[in-house]
Amino acid sequence: MLELRMAKGSIFEDVLEAILDLVNVANVDCSSKGFSLQALDTEHVVFLSLFFPSEVFKSYRCDEDRSMGIAIADMVNLLRASNDGDIITIKVTDENFEDITITFESPDKTRTTYMCLELVDARSQRFKSSDGHDMESEYQAIFCMPSKDFMRNCKTLSVIDDDVVITVDEEVISFFTKGKSGCVNISHVPNKTDNPEKDSVTLTHMRGPVSMILNPSYMKSCAKVSTLFYQVKFGLSTTRPLMVEFQIAEKGYIRYFVAPIEAKGEEGRQRKKAKKNDETGHEMLG
Amino acid sequence: MLELRMAKGSIFEDVLEAILDLVNVANVDCSSKGFSLQALDTEHVVFLSLFFPSEVFKSYRCDEDRSMGIAIADMVNLLRASNDGDIITIKVTDENFEDITITFESPDKTRTTYMCLELVDARSQRFKSSDGHDMESEYQAIFCMPSKDFMRNCKTLSVIDDDVVITVDEEVISFFTKGKSGCVNISHVPNKTDNPEKDSVTLTHMRGPVSMILNPSYMKSCAKVSTLFYQVKFGLSTTRPLMVEFQIAEKGYIRYFVAPIEAKGEEGRQRKKAKKNDETGHEMLG
Amino acid sequence: MLELRMAKGSIFEDVLEAILDLVNVANVDCSSKGFSLQALDTEHVVFLSLFFPSEVFKSYRCDEDRSMGIAIADMVNLLRASNDGDIITIKVTDENFEDITITFESPDKTRTTYMCLELVDARSQRFKSSDGHDMESEYQAIFCMPSKDFMRNCKTLSVIDDDVVITVDEEVISFFTKGKSGCVNISHVPNKTDNPEKDSVTLTHMRGPVSMILNPSYMKSCAKVSTLFYQVKFGLSTTRPLMVEFQIAEKGYIRYFVAPIEAKGEEGRQRKKAKKNDETGHEMLG
Repeated sequence: MLELRMAKGSIFEDVLEAILDLVNVANVDCSSKGFSLQALDTEHVVFLSLFFPSEVFKSYRCDEDRSMGIAIADMVNLLRASNDGDIITIKVTDENFEDITITFESPDKTRTTYMCLELVDARSQRFKSSDGHDMESEYQAIFCMPSKDFMRNCKTLSVIDDDVVITVDEEVISFFTKGKSGCVNISHVPNKTDNPEKDSVTLTHMRGPVSMILNPSYMKSCAKVSTLFYQVKFGLSTTRPLMVEFQIAEKGYIRYFVAPIEAKGEEGRQRKKAKKNDETGHEMLG
Repeated sequence: MLELRMAKGSIFEDVLEAILDLVNVANVDCSSKGFSLQALDTEHVVFLSLFFPSEVFKSYRCDEDRSMGIAIADMVNLLRASNDGDIITIKVTDENFEDITITFESPDKTRTTYMCLELVDARSQRFKSSDGHDMESEYQAIFCMPSKDFMRNCKTLSVIDDDVVITVDEEVISFFTKGKSGCVNISHVPNKTDNPEKDSVTLTHMRGPVSMILNPSYMKSCAKVSTLFYQVKFGLSTTRPLMVEFQIAEKGYIRYFVAPIEAKGEEGRQRKKAKKNDETGHEMLG
Repeated sequence: MLELRMAKGSIFEDVLEAILDLVNVANVDCSSKGFSLQALDTEHVVFLSLFFPSEVFKSYRCDEDRSMGIAIADMVNLLRASNDGDIITIKVTDENFEDITITFESPDKTRTTYMCLELVDARSQRFKSSDGHDMESEYQAIFCMPSKDFMRNCKTLSVIDDDVVITVDEEVISFFTKGKSGCVNISHVPNKTDNPEKDSVTLTHMRGPVSMILNPSYMKSCAKVSTLFYQVKFGLSTTRPLMVEFQIAEKGYIRYFVAPIEAKGEEGRQRKKAKKNDETGHEMLG
């Protein structure tokens, strides 16, 4: 049996709500350690990998590992109907492999709302993602910034609404875009330390200058969850998608892997090949 | 002459505003006792009967009984233009049977807004509704609940957006719906007493278990007015529309009579017949 | 070189934002005295003339007179991306006649946003407008009212959404409209003095009764800026457009010149002729 309990307004609800514009159906793996979720946006540009450790729930019980497909949009829709003070229970029994049940109990117990949600097939959403243990070898540059600065940058860049170039070198981290009516360039002077301060932009790892071209609408989608977290971490590489990471409690995370826009020339052709693999086995994410 | 005076922001304005999505043109009957209004939604699913006793107005004068048709949407539109502090006067003179005049006076009297609104033909909106004096014989079950719980239920049920079944028996009052993505069932454990407590769900009358199937969008329309009142009363019957009642002051009320969705089989055919009568003479509402 | 500096949230930003539904491209003339802007709405019903004296900016430098065309919608869009606390600098260098640059600096200087905006051709937007020095000879009646009353009137009149007649005589200033569903007439009893009180409607100049017919949607457009100012001044004439003026600091202003709807008969023909001149040389505004 799997049983998660949480109070109305938990980080679990908030995060699912924030990923809705990218995710429709997700693959969920539950173990005694926690609840993990993977999904691919319909355009196959963003892979999303979430892990909610058992500690973030009011109570968490998972008797044996379970893998299932959940229509996240429908689930969020049901969760939205909960009310302040409600205790929310999400349950999958061992006998019933077709439904998730969701229950809301009002604080005074006189009102009980019982809901069921059909499980779906989400095997196409399963993929192996980087477990984050060896980020420094995977990325050429890693930097952190306050989430509110990331949101602000997305807002500023969106006045132009054209491709965004993120460039990192030792001296400056810049977000640049150029459109018909003009251009925008946002420059941050980073700290360089392994212990990022909460309120500043910090370059935590650097093997050499790196730059990536991204679609601004996917950056905005990643920024949606920013209101829930204080810091965001970026990993840049010339051979991998951009990683955008938010930390949930001590061991949990949300990681967005955003495929860059193809550069021209030889590099572009290689990337196209990588993308082709990706559509079958998501090998790009190694 | 008919002359109603009220301060800006009165219950009269608020109620008219809240019934707008059901009502376009209404039949209004004024007498020395108060202002009553009847209307039928365009789909002929909901009959609406309102009574504002003279006491709810700042001043009320009606020299002789008057019956007239009012384009409620236009009237609300004009009333919306009033400003905080304004005194609103609605007037129909004995000489002029074609217009209602509406006047706003600013507190300092330097600004006067005078409006006229043409009366319309609303004879098709007139019908005899139950006067509520013998509800216990008319309904198999009557229960009250806090308006905010009714709104909350409508919100919860709307995540599924399919037919809603209200079921009442001695032990439980439930609101149930089932759609493609899942199901929702909200259960209330009612008190049983003639003196309903304000904050609880109370079964005030019960001749036997009863259940009705309703269109959720009409339930939502009835719930719109809920923010203005603390309690709502429901009357259920197998042969009548659902009654949803809110009390205005001591003697006034808003009553929605919502035709249920037809059940299948013999009962369905009878109901169809009743509906046919209804379209000509509204006999269904007895 | 031209260089304007201001804090985020300045009157400059707010005014440009408020004129957006009338103005797309504007002609800007800068001199050592300040920043002036003229524009014509796409329907050629409203001429807009703004003057921001140098004092309203945090710092202002204009080495020599400059005339240029600015795509105001794009500029506002860029300015919207600034953040609380940012210092905004708008600059046109002597070497570069093709771009305006806009810079936002965060208070702690760690974030700099640099934007460029292409200048456009706006010679069609240049016209000579009344400089306001001899208003009393130009207008038959001039009155002031609190801006919030003007907004309120626009809101009230918009419930009818038909032509608006403004009538001024010694005793009363009225705004009237009549449509299919009814009519609205708002009457103000004015003070008569040269020193208008802030909170009352004051008739400051009067050569004789005058009345003008106006399109309500243009009145609403003029009222948009009302939230930024305490008082608004109206100038009415039978031979000129309606003038609606808001004062910016001591020497600045926003003036809307709104062409009235043509009256019938001989007067109408004359006005048509005037309009024709206007389309070529804007002579109507003398």
